[in-house]
Amino acid sequence: MSQEVESIETEITRMKAQLQAISGKVPENKLSMVVFSGELDKVLASFVIATGAVAMGLDVVMFFTFWGTPVLRDKKKKEPAKDMMSAMFGKMLPKGARALKLSKMNMGGLGTAMMKSLMQKKNVASLDQMIEMAAELGVRIYVCEMSMDLMGFKREEMIDYPGLDYVGVAKFLEEAMNSRIQLFI
Amino acid sequence: MSQEVESIETEITRMKAQLQAISGKVPENKLSMVVFSGELDKVLASFVIATGAVAMGLDVVMFFTFWGTPVLRDKKKKEPAKDMMSAMFGKMLPKGARALKLSKMNMGGLGTAMMKSLMQKKNVASLDQMIEMAAELGVRIYVCEMSMDLMGFKREEMIDYPGLDYVGVAKFLEEAMNSRIQLFI
Amino acid sequence: MSQEVESIETEITRMKAQLQAISGKVPENKLSMVVFSGELDKVLASFVIATGAVAMGLDVVMFFTFWGTPVLRDKKKKEPAKDMMSAMFGKMLPKGARALKLSKMNMGGLGTAMMKSLMQKKNVASLDQMIEMAAELGVRIYVCEMSMDLMGFKREEMIDYPGLDYVGVAKFLEEAMNSRIQLFI
Repeated sequence: MSQEVESIETEITRMKAQLQAISGKVPENKLSMVVFSGELDKVLASFVIATGAVAMGLDVVMFFTFWGTPVLRDKKKKEPAKDMMSAMFGKMLPKGARALKLSKMNMGGLGTAMMKSLMQKKNVASLDQMIEMAAELGVRIYVCEMSMDLMGFKREEMIDYPGLDYVGVAKFLEEAMNSRIQLFI
Repeated sequence: MSQEVESIETEITRMKAQLQAISGKVPENKLSMVVFSGELDKVLASFVIATGAVAMGLDVVMFFTFWGTPVLRDKKKKEPAKDMMSAMFGKMLPKGARALKLSKMNMGGLGTAMMKSLMQKKNVASLDQMIEMAAELGVRIYVCEMSMDLMGFKREEMIDYPGLDYVGVAKFLEEAMNSRIQLFI
Repeated sequence: MSQEVESIETEITRMKAQLQAISGKVPENKLSMVVFSGELDKVLASFVIATGAVAMGLDVVMFFTFWGTPVLRDKKKKEPAKDMMSAMFGKMLPKGARALKLSKMNMGGLGTAMMKSLMQKKNVASLDQMIEMAAELGVRIYVCEMSMDLMGFKREEMIDYPGLDYVGVAKFLEEAMNSRIQLFI
C-alpha cells in the first residue's frame, strides 16, 4: 500500500470518530415541554404549541408537573378513597381541563367565561378539544410521579390518554436533552 | 482504479451523506423567545436578553402572544372602531409598554413606580428605550395572529417597528427549531 | 501523485472544514436555566431539574435574576448598611429559601406550610437541602449583577455557595448558547 493511501486512511478514521461524536450531540426532531402552570391561558398555549409542532413533523413530549398535574384529572371519574390531606388537595385544585381559570383577568370567573365564549366564536378549539387532537396526533404525555404523590392523586382518576405515562424528572430530561426545542411553561 | 482507492471513495461518499444529515439538524446562531407574559418585569427581562443576545452576534426573534400582545400597542395611536367585546378587552388590557405593572409588589402602582424610578437612577434603560434599542439592533418581532384576533386588536393600533410581522405559531416554531436558545417567558 | 488520490485529498480537506464548522455549533452536555421567579414551587422545580440533570452527567448553570435573587440571601447573615430604598426592598422581599411562598394556594401561609409538611412526610428534600445538594453536585450558580444593583443587595448578605459568581446577562447567554437544554423559570 502506498504511503499516500495509508495517510488518507488514517485521516478518514479520525474523521469517522469525529462524526460519531458529533452525531451523539445533535438533537432529534423533537420538542419537549414542562407544563408546570395550571392556568387556562398557559395550558392552552402549551397545547397550541404541541399540536402545531406535531403538524410540522416534530415529535412532541409534554411533562405535566406541579400545578399542571390536576389539569389531567378526569371530571367524570369517581374520586378514589384518599387520606385527609390528599382529599383536601383534591378539592382545592381544579378537576380537569374545564375547571381551569385565566392567570389574569379571571374576575371571579367572568373573564374566563368571556375568553371561552370568544374562543368559540372565533373558531379556536377548546382545551378539551385540543387535548383530544393532541392524542390523535400522537403528542406524548408524561405525568410527574413526584407531583402525583405530593398532591395525592391516583392514577385511576386521570384522563384516558393513549400512552400517558408516569415518570420522574430524569426521564423528561433524557427527552429534553435530545430535543431541538425545550420550553418551561 | 485500485481496490484501495475504490473503497476509500465509498467511505467518503458515506461520510458526506452523514455530514449532510447532521448539518440539517445543527441549530443556527439564533435565539427564539415566546413573550407570553405581559408584566413589566418579565417583558423587561425578555428585552434585556434579546438586546444582549444580538450584541453577542445572535439573530433574535421574539414572538408576542396572549398577554404579551397588548404590550406592543401604541398609546399615541387612535383606537380603531371595534365590536363591544374587543372594545372591552382594549380597555382592560394595558395600552403599551408604559402601562405595564410588576408581577409582584405592584402595590396599587407604588411598587411599579418605585422600580421605574430606581431603574432610571441606576441608569438601566426603560422598556420604551429597550424596544427602540431592539429595533436598531435588528431584533425581529412577530405578533401572534390568533391573539390579535381573540383580543380584537387591529394592526393600525400597534407600534411602528421595523419588520414587525403577524404570524401563526408554525412560523415561530420554524425559527425556534433552528435556534440555539429557546425561551418561554 | 495520481489524479485519483489528489481529488480524494481535496474532498477530505473540504469535509474537514465542514466538520470543524459543525463542531462549533453542536451544544455541550449542559443545561442552562434562568431562575426569574422567586416562588417556592418554581424554585423547587428549578432545583429538582438542576440536581436531576447533574445526576445524568450534564453540566448545570443556574442564573438567578429579578425575584430569584433574594432567594439566595442568607437569613443568618447580618444585613449590611443600605440606603433607604435598598433597605425597603430588603425588608419586602423574602430573606432566603425558607421565606418563600407558593405561587398559588398560599392562603396566608397555610398552603405553603401544608406543602412543606407534605414534602417532609413524603421524603422530598426541602429547598435548603436541595441547595446544599446542588452545591455538592457541582451545580454552578450565577447571580445577575443588574438585579443585585437594582434591589440593593450586597454580596456579603448572600449565601456561601462554592463558586457562586456575579455576572451580566452576556455571561449567561454564552453558557446557554452552548447548552443542550435552556429553560426560563
